[in-house]
Parts: sequence; structure tokens; C-alpha cells
Amino acid sequence: MTMIGILGAGQLGRMLALSGYPLGHRFRFLDPASHSPAGLLADHLAFGYSDKAALEQFADGLDVVTYEFENVPVETVRHLEKIVPVYPPAPALEKAQDRFVEKSFFCELGIPTPKFTTDIDKDFDFPAVLKTRRMGYDGKGQTVVNSGVDLEDEKPDGMILEEFISFGRELSIIGVRNKAGETRFYPLVENHHREGILRLSLVTGNVLPSLQQDAEKYARRVMSALEYVGVLAIEFFESEGDLLANEMAPRVHNSGHWTIEGAVTSQFENHLRAVTDAPLGCTDPLGACAMINLVGELPDVKSILNIDGAHLHLYDKAPRPKRKIGHITFVEKDLETLQRKLDLLKEIADVL
Amino acid sequence: MTMIGILGAGQLGRMLALSGYPLGHRFRFLDPASHSPAGLLADHLAFGYSDKAALEQFADGLDVVTYEFENVPVETVRHLEKIVPVYPPAPALEKAQDRFVEKSFFCELGIPTPKFTTDIDKDFDFPAVLKTRRMGYDGKGQTVVNSGVDLEDEKPDGMILEEFISFGRELSIIGVRNKAGETRFYPLVENHHREGILRLSLVTGNVLPSLQQDAEKYARRVMSALEYVGVLAIEFFESEGDLLANEMAPRVHNSGHWTIEGAVTSQFENHLRAVTDAPLGCTDPLGACAMINLVGELPDVKSILNIDGAHLHLYDKAPRPKRKIGHITFVEKDLETLQRKLDLLKEIADVL
Repeated sequence: MTMIGILGAGQLGRMLALSGYPLGHRFRFLDPASHSPAGLLADHLAFGYSDKAALEQFADGLDVVTYEFENVPVETVRHLEKIVPVYPPAPALEKAQDRFVEKSFFCELGIPTPKFTTDIDKDFDFPAVLKTRRMGYDGKGQTVVNSGVDLEDEKPDGMILEEFISFGRELSIIGVRNKAGETRFYPLVENHHREGILRLSLVTGNVLPSLQQDAEKYARRVMSALEYVGVLAIEFFESEGDLLANEMAPRVHNSGHWTIEGAVTSQFENHLRAVTDAPLGCTDPLGACAMINLVGELPDVKSILNIDGAHLHLYDKAPRPKRKIGHITFVEKDLETLQRKLDLLKEIADVL
Repeated sequence: MTMIGILGAGQLGRMLALSGYPLGHRFRFLDPASHSPAGLLADHLAFGYSDKAALEQFADGLDVVTYEFENVPVETVRHLEKIVPVYPPAPALEKAQDRFVEKSFFCELGIPTPKFTTDIDKDFDFPAVLKTRRMGYDGKGQTVVNSGVDLEDEKPDGMILEEFISFGRELSIIGVRNKAGETRFYPLVENHHREGILRLSLVTGNVLPSLQQDAEKYARRVMSALEYVGVLAIEFFESEGDLLANEMAPRVHNSGHWTIEGAVTSQFENHLRAVTDAPLGCTDPLGACAMINLVGELPDVKSILNIDGAHLHLYDKAPRPKRKIGHITFVEKDLETLQRKLDLLKEIADVL
């Protein structure tokens, strides 16, 4: 039995605990929110991440600490590291929290990215995407700009200008590495967004093997450079047959939720296996998979459960516009059956 | 969100909660044990089942109550029924708690059983099995007797004498029925015991379709007669090509644990769907499945996790002789691969 501390008690923490209890682990969460999706399932300390006394109370008796989102202050991790092992390692968090640092890191490792600059007065190919360097997620903190003139009101220090990729699709890779350096990778996931929020992830075997090889090669470079332990997600644009790295997340990832039913071992279980120094589990997919996010409001639950093979996951979060409150997964024997299930879902809810 | 109360907080309650959180449910347990496998995951009231004040405290705010073992006192359920719906219905519990009542009930419904009598002084075919009418489980409370003489010291009131079946195998059916009367059935499971305790459940497609039809027909009769809601398990002896009903359990069942990974919808989720008046989930198996109980002591966990496709389930119970402390499930594409996994497991642990 390993006592695992998790920073953040949202749906990712909830799914980590649900996958970790069967392995015999116990959990404690730290999250400033008083009500949290994971808080019902384990101890939950509702303190700020910078409260050092609370951090020490949190760490007491823990065997290992991990985190479920990448905006945990790095100082929090640095402080905890003095008391208890923390995975993924702090440098992963530092790279992932700043888009400029992150893209520069990709470049150092020879991983292709869209063109980018923080010198936003400079000439650049427009249209381009202007993003905050920090704290952006679900499309927040980014806008398409058409000329240098648009940039006048921006604070250049905190911004990054990136090449606008008219990409065919976004693909993400979920990899996992344990302390022994063993790595495993799930198949590339095809992601579809609406209003900047992930709506649909598909694993249907429609990705060229060469892209899978490239994605694994890039992810392995990142994990190796960081002496990484845990699950890592990297999002790519597919552009003219090649992958361009957009961003990484040093944690379990929304585009990996399909693995709960759709892979032999879920991303959640593999993350826990990694941070507890256990052998990694098989990442093979079990069929043609789709994961549909439930965003903003909850469709009729009975109608969803009435679709054979619909796996419902609710996060115990109050509905609110643009908020992810759950997801649905289908694992089917072929693409045709999968499409039929998605069609049934579309009839009852505007989720795609 | 449905607030579900569960009587009993053992591993079955634990797995019910783990499968029910994703559906958005919340849980409260009542169990006299102060430490319990389910108690870490939800509220746990540690009171006796006959404490009426505690029952009222337990029931407060619940939408529905269910139970995870069949020896909950019937009066407890009768008392709770006045406050909140309880499923499966009390008569199911009454039948299942007394082997004589249970077998008589099977007979009334035209379901074949081994010969039995409570008139244990009478002539009977020996060898026979002498069992306590109540509270027996995991082989406890039963012994093989070779003649009427052996019975002298027994208290006949509480005993039942049953035909000794030199059966080819034990098969069990797991069925589920919801309030609307919809039913679903998992494939028959082949069960292997050691020292009276279930060690291995197999779902490998090696059961004649006619036996599956018989088992479903019998289970449907039982569920219909009881206006049953929830999961029901019936154990059969396979004798000369026919099924003889041995006993039933009005709850999720050890021989259904393979469904967590091995079926589209697990027995735990389907039980919760039934008691919350939701549509039932698909019961199709996903491959050749084996469930191996971990009894008494825990084998080396890392060695288990090192077998690709080993799904480990620990119950957070202290090791103790003959105690079920966890299980392992394999779901493989064919019987040959499954056998190879079982062989690997046998190399590291004496579990089969």
C-alpha cells in the first residue's frame, strides 16, 4: 500500500483515485477549492498551494506526491520535494508552464514546432496566434491576429506570437515512463475542438505508422531529457504530413480518457504505476474508440445509458458554460459501429 | 446524482462505489466493522444492523438502499423499507438466507436442484452433504457425511442434508433486472474451488448454448417471482449435462468480478443501474476471461503487474488465512493466450 498525495482535486485527480484504489493505494488531495470532484473519494485538505504549514501537513505520512494540473506553483513542488519524492519532476512543470520556455525546449531537442517569437514587434507571418505565455487553457488566453498593428495594446513580456497552422488535425500522444526508464506509448489520438475546448478524441487506427513513430521519438526525447516519471501528453499539429509540437502537459490528459475502457491499462493506472515505481501496463487499444466531453450542461443521463456500450463518466461538478463536467467513451469493434454510436449520441445531445 | 446507501462495506461495496462514482452517484455505508474496504471511499457509519436509531441516521437523505451481502438481517431491510426504497426486495433475502427455504423455492419454480431434506434422520443416499441452513459461506458450515450415524451429534433443526453431486463443474449465472422488468445475463462462469473457497472463475465460451438458455430461464423465473431489482447470482452444479441449482445470492457476486474488465458493463455498474432505475448496460464479454482470487496472503505485487494484461484488484484487507484480499483478472483474445497468462501467474504465486 502506497500513500499518494495529489496536488489538485479535479476530475483528473478523481480518476486517478478511482484507478488507484484497486491497486491498493490510498490518497490525499490538496486543493484550494472547498468542494472538489476528488474530495468525496479521499482526504481533501482545502488550503492554498503556497501555504507551507499546510504543505507539511499534506506531506505527512505520504510515500509520493504527484499533481493533476500543470499550473501548480513550481515552488510548491520544490518545497514538497524536500520532504517526499514528487513526480513528474519539477523541471517538467517549469517547461510546461511557459509557452516560450516550452517551445524553446522542444527546439533544443530537435522537435519541430510552429514558428514562434516573443519579440512581437518584429515582422512575422500574419495571420498569427497571439498567446499568453502562462496560464492559458481550453483556448483561453489566445487570439488570432492579422497584423502587427493588432499587437499595440498587448504587454509583450507575457506574450508569445506563433505561426498560425491551418492544420488538418490535432494529434496528441500519451506516453508514460517509470523510474527504471521503461517507456510505453498509447496510439496517437485525433482531437476535435469547439470554441477552443476539446470535444471529441478518436482512436481509430487512421494515423500513419510513421507519425506514430515520430511522436514516440519526440516524447521519448522529452521524457529522457527531464528524467521524467509519470504520464506525459504532447499535442501536435499535423501539417503537410509532419508533426509540429504545440504544447505538452506533465500529467494525465483529457485526450487520454478513452484509455479507461479503451486500452488494456488506462493512463491513470499507468501514471500511478510509474510514480510508485511499478512495472508499466500494456497500452494496446481494445477497439475503435471515441471520447466525447460533456461541456457546460448535462444531457439526459438515461438516454445516454440507453446506448449500448456508452461508458459514462461524471465528475460531480455543477454545470456551468464551457465547464467540462463529464465524458462518454465508446469502444467498438470497428469504425462503422463506432460511427453508428456517435450518430445515436448526436440525436440526444449537442455534444459533438 | 443519486445518494445510495449500502449495507455492508466489504470488497463488494468497495467495487460498487468504484463503479458508481463515474455514474455521478454518491455513497454511504453501514457496517459494524470499524475498518472496512469501502469505508475509505465514502461515508461509513460503524453501527450494528439492528440499531434502529443508526438505521434512521443512515437512511437520512438517501435515495435508495442496497446491500452487498445476503446475511443482512431481514428486519433491517424491513425497517429501512419504511423510510427509503431497498433493492433487491426483502423476500429475496429471506429465500437466500435459508438453504431449505431457498431450495424449496427453486422447486416451486420448477428449477432442478440436488435432492435435499431437513428430515435428517430419514433414509438418504449417502455420501451426502450436511449443511447449516443459515450463515454458511466459503465452504464453512458444510461437511460430507457417509451415513446416518454421522448425524447423531447434529442439531437437526438448523441443518439440511443434500445429495452429493459428483459434478463435472460448478457454473454460475449472473443476471440483472431493473424496475421496468428489463433483464440481462452474463455468460455462464465456470468456477473452481480449493478448500471450499472460490479460486478461479473462467469465461471461455466452453459452455453449451442450451445450458446458457436453461440458466437464463431459471434466473428469469426467480427474478420474476420476486419482482427482483438488481444483480442476482445463481450457482449450479453441471450434472450429466443438466443444471442443478445449488444456491443463489441476491447481490453482486465473486464469480462476476471478471466483468469489471471482461464485459462491456460490469456487474457492479449494472447493479447500480438497476437499483437507480436506469437502463441496463450491455453484458457481452470482451474476450476469454479469467478471475483469480487472492486468498490468505498477497503475492509479490510487482511480479503480478509485470504480466501484461494483469488487472489487479486489492481490497485493502489485512492478510489472514482463507480471507479473500484481492483478485486478478485477465481478458485475452483467445484461450491459448489466456492459458499462457495463467501459467505465468502460477510461476510467481500459488493462487490456482
